[in-house]
Amino acid sequence: MTTGCPRTSTAEIAYPVEVDYAHDEVPDGLFAGEPARSAGLDRWTPLLPPLDAPTLGEGGTPLIEIGDGAYLKDESRNPTWSHKDRLNRCTVSAAVRMDAPGVVVASSGNHGASAAAFAARAGLRCIVLTSPDAPPAVRSFVDSYGAVVLPLPQESRWPLMRQITDRLGYHPVSNLTVTHTGHAFGPEGYKTIAYEIFTEIGVPAAVFTPTGYGELLFGVWKGFAELRRLGLACSVGGHRGLVAIPESGGEALPVSDEEMAAAQAELSRQGVWAELSAAAGLAGLRRHGAVDGPVVCVSTSSGFKDLTVGSHRAEPIDPTWEAVSRRLRAAGITA
Amino acid sequence: MTTGCPRTSTAEIAYPVEVDYAHDEVPDGLFAGEPARSAGLDRWTPLLPPLDAPTLGEGGTPLIEIGDGAYLKDESRNPTWSHKDRLNRCTVSAAVRMDAPGVVVASSGNHGASAAAFAARAGLRCIVLTSPDAPPAVRSFVDSYGAVVLPLPQESRWPLMRQITDRLGYHPVSNLTVTHTGHAFGPEGYKTIAYEIFTEIGVPAAVFTPTGYGELLFGVWKGFAELRRLGLACSVGGHRGLVAIPESGGEALPVSDEEMAAAQAELSRQGVWAELSAAAGLAGLRRHGAVDGPVVCVSTSSGFKDLTVGSHRAEPIDPTWEAVSRRLRAAGITA
Repeated sequence: MTTGCPRTSTAEIAYPVEVDYAHDEVPDGLFAGEPARSAGLDRWTPLLPPLDAPTLGEGGTPLIEIGDGAYLKDESRNPTWSHKDRLNRCTVSAAVRMDAPGVVVASSGNHGASAAAFAARAGLRCIVLTSPDAPPAVRSFVDSYGAVVLPLPQESRWPLMRQITDRLGYHPVSNLTVTHTGHAFGPEGYKTIAYEIFTEIGVPAAVFTPTGYGELLFGVWKGFAELRRLGLACSVGGHRGLVAIPESGGEALPVSDEEMAAAQAELSRQGVWAELSAAAGLAGLRRHGAVDGPVVCVSTSSGFKDLTVGSHRAEPIDPTWEAVSRRLRAAGITA
Repeated sequence: MTTGCPRTSTAEIAYPVEVDYAHDEVPDGLFAGEPARSAGLDRWTPLLPPLDAPTLGEGGTPLIEIGDGAYLKDESRNPTWSHKDRLNRCTVSAAVRMDAPGVVVASSGNHGASAAAFAARAGLRCIVLTSPDAPPAVRSFVDSYGAVVLPLPQESRWPLMRQITDRLGYHPVSNLTVTHTGHAFGPEGYKTIAYEIFTEIGVPAAVFTPTGYGELLFGVWKGFAELRRLGLACSVGGHRGLVAIPESGGEALPVSDEEMAAAQAELSRQGVWAELSAAAGLAGLRRHGAVDGPVVCVSTSSGFKDLTVGSHRAEPIDPTWEAVSRRLRAAGITA
């Protein structure tokens, strides 16, 4: 479950355990009719691992039209305001089922905070191995859920995580392997993004998703692949492939910080404040150019996650109409 | 619409315009069956002002069980992570309908950021009159949506807001009157909280909601009162009244900062990171004591809104098992 497939893994490469389901036992109508924002992850129990950890109302995020046939899947609307909540509902469920006293996670951001929240909700302890350079806003966030936060140099985090797992029996909800395979249940949570998109707009022409280790990407692809197995989705591959992994025929698009910043600004003008990395999906679409048919860009988290603000006081404006109208004119606002 | 009822208001007291509906034209089944998180505010159009401003997927927030028959209505799951999005979908709609070039709002927090987001989404400019002492996190937040932020002393904000309204034709989406009446459409947005609660658990025994000027309180009460008028809710008053306004027979419960901090910590232990003021609902329930029947506490916003963090680096721990296990023992974690 957490160290890779016992049959195929070697000392050099840990292959993830893949979760499969009795597809012929999936009830008819699971994907029919209803809008997607109805019951979060619990709607999909026939196609998920046992959800032993209690819900925080994760999933069921809105799909927002952003023009030209494109939609934004706003994952900042999860319990800890990122897509990681879908993963952690599933991975903390594994910890509950295995009777672990707590969970341990190596993360300096959304993953750790989300694990801490779901562990708290399930009555488990949580240890977060983090970087000393983690943004202060994220630290406050993780602390708030009562997790034990251990700032450690990058290279020591994984060995120590293994010791916490071995010596204390804590369940690892992030990678514990030599290569980054992730927890087997993680992509099971992510695939519900595909299910929700499907119930709202069917199979889109393309999905653009930010990616680091490729876990979210794999999960979204798996969700659409399962829909195809269930006979519900006619095509999930091709040049207009849904996910940018080789098997789907999609594309991996590198995007620069400048492109992400431009996409972040474009979303802000639409009223959506995304984390910089969360804007990578839209940045990918802009780099790729127009796609024929509906397109979904996944925005994984909120702008609050980037905050590195200080505490300085704003300079007050002279409270006269003259000073105020001068400031407004500078911003292009005139009578 | 924005200066109070022309018939009843005097120079001293501005009475808000009250919005009423043709209740006999409300379609049967509007409140039937479906779970609440389906379509956000647009589900309720027969009982709302015209929603001319485009949606950001506001509303449809989850109701989370927190034990002993109590539920948390988690309003941090809105587009700008607070209940204010329900109000601003409606008030910015008024600005769109009136062909205003933009909106103006006096706020140092959630209200201003939410107005900025909905204005951006609708293609309108937004001017936010704020306090020079507004938390830096909130300033970054408002800035992100491209609003013009004017830090001004408290006493100058309202007179200057009136000038911006009169001279530039901007639509005010917060109070513009001598007494705080608020925008007539604001509580119309808030009342959808009551509608959503009703579709999920029926009429609860009590609702505990944070309140400042009483707009949210009035809105939630109005939602339940309308359900009674529609013959759907049997009782919305009594000692176990739904909302703490005199008409409902509810109670106003003052809560201290310490009580709110305790409620905030209690929610954190359940995996919900609420803004301090947002925990006032649960603090009210704890002060009041047990209620016979299901209870809903409204949590209005996210812990990120309180952030006043600096930028200091966390002190790294010595990356040895000895140092790590010492730290874990101090937190009560042992093998």
